[in-house]
Order: sequence, then structure tokens, then C-alpha cells
Amino acid sequence: MYLMCKVLFMLLISQVYSSPRKKSYSEIKSCNVGNLAEEIASYDSVVRDIMNYVVSGPFKRKTYDELEKFVDKFGARISGSQVLEDSIDYMIKLTQDEDLTDIVTEELEVPHWVREQEKITMLKPRSKNIAVLGLGKSISTPPEGVTADVVVFSNFEEFDNASIEDVKGKIVLFNPIFTTYHETSPYRTHGAARAAEKGAVASLIRSITPFSINSPHAGVQHYSENVTKIPTAAITLEDADLIKRFYNRGEKVVLNIKMHSSFETKTSRNTLIDLKGTKNPEKLVIVSGHIDSWDVGQGAMDDGGGLFVSWAAPIILKRLNLIPKRTVRAIFWTAEELGFVGVNAYAEKHKNESHNINFIMESDEGTFAPRGLSVAGTQEARCIIAEILKLFESINASTLIETDRPLSDIAFIVQNGIPGASLHNANEKYHWFHHTEGDTMNVENPEELDLCTAFWTAVAYIIADISVDIPR
Amino acid sequence: MYLMCKVLFMLLISQVYSSPRKKSYSEIKSCNVGNLAEEIASYDSVVRDIMNYVVSGPFKRKTYDELEKFVDKFGARISGSQVLEDSIDYMIKLTQDEDLTDIVTEELEVPHWVREQEKITMLKPRSKNIAVLGLGKSISTPPEGVTADVVVFSNFEEFDNASIEDVKGKIVLFNPIFTTYHETSPYRTHGAARAAEKGAVASLIRSITPFSINSPHAGVQHYSENVTKIPTAAITLEDADLIKRFYNRGEKVVLNIKMHSSFETKTSRNTLIDLKGTKNPEKLVIVSGHIDSWDVGQGAMDDGGGLFVSWAAPIILKRLNLIPKRTVRAIFWTAEELGFVGVNAYAEKHKNESHNINFIMESDEGTFAPRGLSVAGTQEARCIIAEILKLFESINASTLIETDRPLSDIAFIVQNGIPGASLHNANEKYHWFHHTEGDTMNVENPEELDLCTAFWTAVAYIIADISVDIPR
Repeated sequence: MYLMCKVLFMLLISQVYSSPRKKSYSEIKSCNVGNLAEEIASYDSVVRDIMNYVVSGPFKRKTYDELEKFVDKFGARISGSQVLEDSIDYMIKLTQDEDLTDIVTEELEVPHWVREQEKITMLKPRSKNIAVLGLGKSISTPPEGVTADVVVFSNFEEFDNASIEDVKGKIVLFNPIFTTYHETSPYRTHGAARAAEKGAVASLIRSITPFSINSPHAGVQHYSENVTKIPTAAITLEDADLIKRFYNRGEKVVLNIKMHSSFETKTSRNTLIDLKGTKNPEKLVIVSGHIDSWDVGQGAMDDGGGLFVSWAAPIILKRLNLIPKRTVRAIFWTAEELGFVGVNAYAEKHKNESHNINFIMESDEGTFAPRGLSVAGTQEARCIIAEILKLFESINASTLIETDRPLSDIAFIVQNGIPGASLHNANEKYHWFHHTEGDTMNVENPEELDLCTAFWTAVAYIIADISVDIPR
Repeated sequence: MYLMCKVLFMLLISQVYSSPRKKSYSEIKSCNVGNLAEEIASYDSVVRDIMNYVVSGPFKRKTYDELEKFVDKFGARISGSQVLEDSIDYMIKLTQDEDLTDIVTEELEVPHWVREQEKITMLKPRSKNIAVLGLGKSISTPPEGVTADVVVFSNFEEFDNASIEDVKGKIVLFNPIFTTYHETSPYRTHGAARAAEKGAVASLIRSITPFSINSPHAGVQHYSENVTKIPTAAITLEDADLIKRFYNRGEKVVLNIKMHSSFETKTSRNTLIDLKGTKNPEKLVIVSGHIDSWDVGQGAMDDGGGLFVSWAAPIILKRLNLIPKRTVRAIFWTAEELGFVGVNAYAEKHKNESHNINFIMESDEGTFAPRGLSVAGTQEARCIIAEILKLFESINASTLIETDRPLSDIAFIVQNGIPGASLHNANEKYHWFHHTEGDTMNVENPEELDLCTAFWTAVAYIIADISVDIPR
């Protein structure tokens, strides 16, 4: 099963990372949703009820408080770990305590990569410890480490222009300045595979972030099938720039890299919670986030916030007795960080029912102040969503961003033509904390999280309840 | 000598940390500097010459490039270390290369505290590594560490209200929210001494910063004479808040703290570079920064920037053949971070010539965009400085902040009635990086640094050249 997922993953990953030219606008040009406009507008009072309940009523601060208890109790929840499985059990219990009992878990095999010793020491031109986080699934070095000269590249183009002699036997440092995650993360995901093509003995990347307090950023990477696997890690912006300055001055930089990790396959679970629809229970509006995290920080932002707004949606609807025509399904994906493993298993397992997914949503890029949705789908589908988003003008969350495929888990669902969206939010500082020890509750804000919860819940309700399916 | 400094230090430190109510204004009310206004205004062309030379002329980016080479070569320069002494030699050579030869070093004894092993592990309610930086001069723990329950206090008032039974045998965590450095740093400098009064076995502080990416902040602390010395360290905002949340929920928090360090006395040097005055060479206008740093980061901001703008001032004046009537003396203080040791030695050694210090300046709170000066002195003295600052309106650096005593080294000079100033600059994020691994060249900006250099040089020149001494 895991192997099958992996193959599927390798086929899809190139598409995810070659994905969208986004363009932002509040109103889709030439949208005409006809009578539906009036119907959608009639949900205004429901939106207000949900808003009041979450922002100033009984659910006020509930998302934040539950998220806080959860991440404090479990901390980091890496794929394949016992703590991740315990946290899944905890979420099931938390949901059952809300009298939601339509809960299914689906087992799958997941990678379990465990970071052990990691140490990088600059030996020349002077002695210095280099802060490090090995990249996901990196192999270990020999016990004495890898010691070699460093060769620095600002981008793949520079690397392509280098000769094999320039790279062979060296440690490659890819030092790209952060532009967007989409543009810069390929240096993390594919840097080691590329460096190995020319005989590098290890590869390092400048952490994928625009800002740092000497903070290394973890993340997954993928070796290529036919290329030697070499140890690979992220270092900080500060150390990457320091090495580059030495290198540009013609001073030889020699590093010793010691890394040790273990890797095995374990069993984990996707968790599916249904609030069954009254009229078309077979039709699904999915709200989702991933429950696993990296092994640093608390995974409060990535993706505790997305997990908890999705947990909250069916609970709030049940509490308010707002049971829509279609089923609202909350999914807690497992093993997102190690390569979208949970979602792939789900897609595979449910491929014969995929026509039943009316709309799929994931929040995995922060739960700061909501601004709207990034929507994948046909123009007709986007017009309907844009009409729904008009109901959120009062909280400044009416923006629709057009995307071919939202990032993260649901990319693997919507690429099959299923319409979907990710939460568009005020996440300008998201990458400051992403995959670092700083991804903790200190990043989260209770008022903003309440707005996300209310927005997420109300959008899911309307889509699940309106008279038409979201067209494909 | 070191002991004498220490006693002097203990007498003065309480005053430094009980210092000023600052108030900001651009114009001193009821200032009338008489004919001096015209004289000062006549320096306008000199200011322009210096600005042009530094900001767009031959000295453009020179301060930044030299700072970069310096901090890259030496990295952190802790008091008493060989690398600090090497860096002092380097600065002397760099100055001699500019044909400034009136250079004196003055030896003094300095503390040499060396951080070795440091590890804090949360044992209950769950296992977690806690990022840590031991505080300066902390004693070591036994090899097995100190293991105890934690008791959390948000401020000294809460601590004062606690009984000895509440604290005895515990690890105290002082968790004050950052307001200003002046208000919050006493938890670092005196937390261990206070906690020990009630029998705590160790003390921790929330790092002195308003912002963190799980970044611990180093800094000095001072044991009291009659109180048991206990190990003491800084932890991050994130971990302090996590511990506090557990504590507030009534969950027992147990930590194991392992720290090992060494402490001895070494010899270091203050460095004095004179550009001798043409008319009153015995009278001094001092520009200064400290050359030592904490043992984390590169000490680029604290206080590499201050060091290099002070280094640049006499060089630029000499290059431009602007030799003022009084002597401009650049001083590179040593061992500031471990307790203002260098400046105390200077004050003691030169106490019989202190009447010759016409004005003393230090930059030790960042060299971001200059805004003006924080000035200590009589109203008459401030009026003259305010008049000089008017010449810097075009770069928005005309603000005079009234202070009883600028922070850092020169506090120990101006408290004797000698007028002085520190650089007022756009340092709103200074404490994000202060005493962390993030204090590197990445914090510095070449254009802003050029503005500081030009401002610092021009102000020193005018004060050293005008027809009147700065009154006391």
C-alpha cells in the first residue's frame, strides 16, 4: 500500500510543484448565477447565526482553547509516531464528547523518519557550529560524518552551468532567496537529487523562509530513483549567507556534516467524521486539515489550526441544528508532511466514489484572519463560490483567488477535476514559522481563529445545503 | 583591579537599571543658544561634505563592508577570549592602515565565562527539550543536573507575595511580558539572586524580547553577596508560555537542568584612537562602541555597528582633513557584556582627567536608520545639541531624547555629570535579535549604516570644533 502511494505520489508531485499562476479578484467577471444569487443571499441569516455563535457566543475561543490543550498535550506529531496515533485517538474522543458519533478511521502505511544526531561544524575558514535540521527521509552520514569543501549555487541554473568537476566530492549549498513557497521549495524537495547527479557527497539548502532568527526549517525531500542518495539538510539564512560570503571571497569553506536518522514503515489513520446530510447523505462537502506535523515546534500553525477549524465545523452545525442536505465530512489527514501519504490513500480507497465529492476544502496555510478562498474548479463553480463569499464582506473575507490546484493535500483530489478550495488568510508571516521550533501557540490568535472557524463552518454549510451541486 | 571594578559596578548597576523617564521632542522648549545658533548653522556645508563622502562618495558602504569582514572573520567575541584579543589587534591594524597612529591600548582584568554543556529537559507533564542559554556568570549544576518542580511568577510582586514554602527546593521561572528593556531586564540581572532568597534550586527567565522564533536570549546576571548562587538560564517565550499554561492548569511541571560552564579572570584591553585637536588637544569628544559581544551570533548588531561607526569617525575626518579644535577619541570598550568592565576601568584610570571629557557618545542600541540622539546633561547642554541636530533634518535625524543617563557603557561616565549621548535610531526590532544567534550581518543594512556613520562623524566633529565647551 505504501509503495503504491509512493508511486502515485511521484507521479503527482511534479504537477503540484509546477502548479498555478494565481490571480486575485473579488468578483468573477461575467458571472451570472441566475436565480441562485437570491437563494445564496437567503443564507445571510444563517451566516450571522454561525458568526454570532462562534465569535461572541458559546463557541467563542473554543477552537483556540481546544487547539492549545491539544498541542500542549502532544507537541510535535510526526508521521508514524505513537504520539500521532495517540493524538488521533484524542481527537476521536473529543469529537464523540460532542455527540458526533459517525466517525471512521481508515488505516494506511506511512513513513516513519526519525531525526537523531545532527551536527554541522564549519572547519574552515574558522570553527563554527552551524544550526541544522536534516530534511525528511534524508539518509544518515557515516558516524565520522562527511567532510568536504562547499560549493554554493544561488539557483538551479547556476548549478546546471557547473561542470561535474566543480561539484564532484563537494558539499553543495543551494542558497536561493525566498520568493514564494511554490518557487523556492523545489530546492528543498529536489536539491539532494540534483546535487547527487553531479557527484556531490551531501547537499544543504538555505531554509525556505524570507525571515529568520537563525532558525532552520525542516521539510520533506525526495531522492530520485536512479541517483545516489546523499545526506541533505537545511541551514539558516544567516549561515547560508555567511558561507556564501566566504565562498565569494575565494575562502575555502570546509564543513563536517554528521547526521543520523532511522526510517521505517508504520501504520497510521485518516479520520473521517460525518454530519450526515438530510437529503443527499451520499454527497460530500469535505472540510479538512492534517493532524501530523513536523518533529519541531508544536504543529500549532501547521496544521493544528486547519485541523481544528475542520473539527469545529460539523460540531457547530450540529449544536445549532443546522443539518444541511448533503453530508459535511471533516477529515483529519495523516502523514501529510512526509509526502501527502494520507490523502493519497484516501483518494485510492475512495476512487470509485469520487463523483460524490461535491466540494473539498483544506486549511493548511495558516488560520490567521480569513480573507476568502483559493478556488480550483470550472468558471461556473467559481461563480457560485464567489456568490457565497459575498456573504462574508462584513469580515473582509470575500476574496476569491483563482487557482488551478490549491497547495497541500487536496491538490491530489482536485487534480481529478473535483472542485475544491483552500483557506485564503492573512498569512504573510506564515513562512517565518513554518516547519520550525517556532510553530507554537504563540503564533496563533484566538480572535482570528474564531473568524476562521465561523467562516469555514458557514461556507461548508451553504455549499452542502444549496439546491445545486457545485458543477464540474 | 577586576575586584575594584566589580565593587564599583555593583554600586552603579542599581542606578543604571533604575534610570530614565525618557521624553521625546524635536525642539527643547525655551532654548536660546544666542550667537551660537549662527555658528552652528555655519557647519551646514561640513555636514553636507561628510554626508556626501559617506553616503554617495568614496566611503559609501565602507562601514558595512569592513563590519562584514570583521564579524565574518571573528564571529562572537566574548570577554576574556583569545578571539576578542585577536579582533582588537585586527582593529588596531585596520586603523593604522588608515594612517591613524595615535592608538593606545589600556590593559585590564576581565571575566571570562565560558558556556559548555547546557540542556534542559521537561520530564513532566511530558518529555520535551527546552531551548536554553545559560545566563552570564551562572554557576554549573551538578553533573546529573538539577531536577525539580517549577513555580511560575509573572513579576517580582507575585514572587514577593509567595511564601518560602512555595519556592524552596523549586525551580523558579520568571515569566514577565516584555515592555521595555529597562523594565524587563532586571528579571534577567537579578532573577537568580531573588529566587535564591527563598531557597529556589535554580531560576529561569522568559527571554528578554517581545518576539521569538523559539529563540533564547543570553545576557549577564548578578548574584547577590549574601545569597546562595544558583544556576540560572533563559528559555524562549514559547517554552515559558507552555510551562505557564501547564502550571496554570495545575499540571505539575518537572524539569531537569544540566549546565556546565567555567569562569576565570583574563586580561583584555580598551582601545583608544585619537585624532588630536588643533587647539585644545587635551579636551576630548569621545565616540565609542564595545568590541566584545555575547558568545552567540556574530555580534554584528551588538555592538559591531556601534564599534564601526565609532571607528569610522576619526578616519573620515582625517581623510577629509577636517581636524577639529578638540581631540576626537574613538574608544572600543572591552568586556561590556559581562558588566561594563572596560568602561569602569577607563573611568577609574582617567578619573583625574575627567574634566577633559567635553562630550561622550556611545552607539550600543543598533545602527539602523539614525533618528537623533538621546542626551544626558544640563538643559543648556541639551539646547546646544538640539541646535546641532537641526542640521540633520534632511535625513530625519533631528530628534533629541532627554535622558538622565543613556544605557550601556557611557552611563558610568555621564553619571558623574559629564554630558553624553547615545545614538537614537529606528531600532524597533533590536530586541528580536539582541543576544541571540540571530545577531548577524543579516540584521544590518548598508544604507542605514552609512547614514549612522555620517551622522556620528558630523556630530562629533561639530561638538569638537565649536567655540564653546559643552557646559556641565
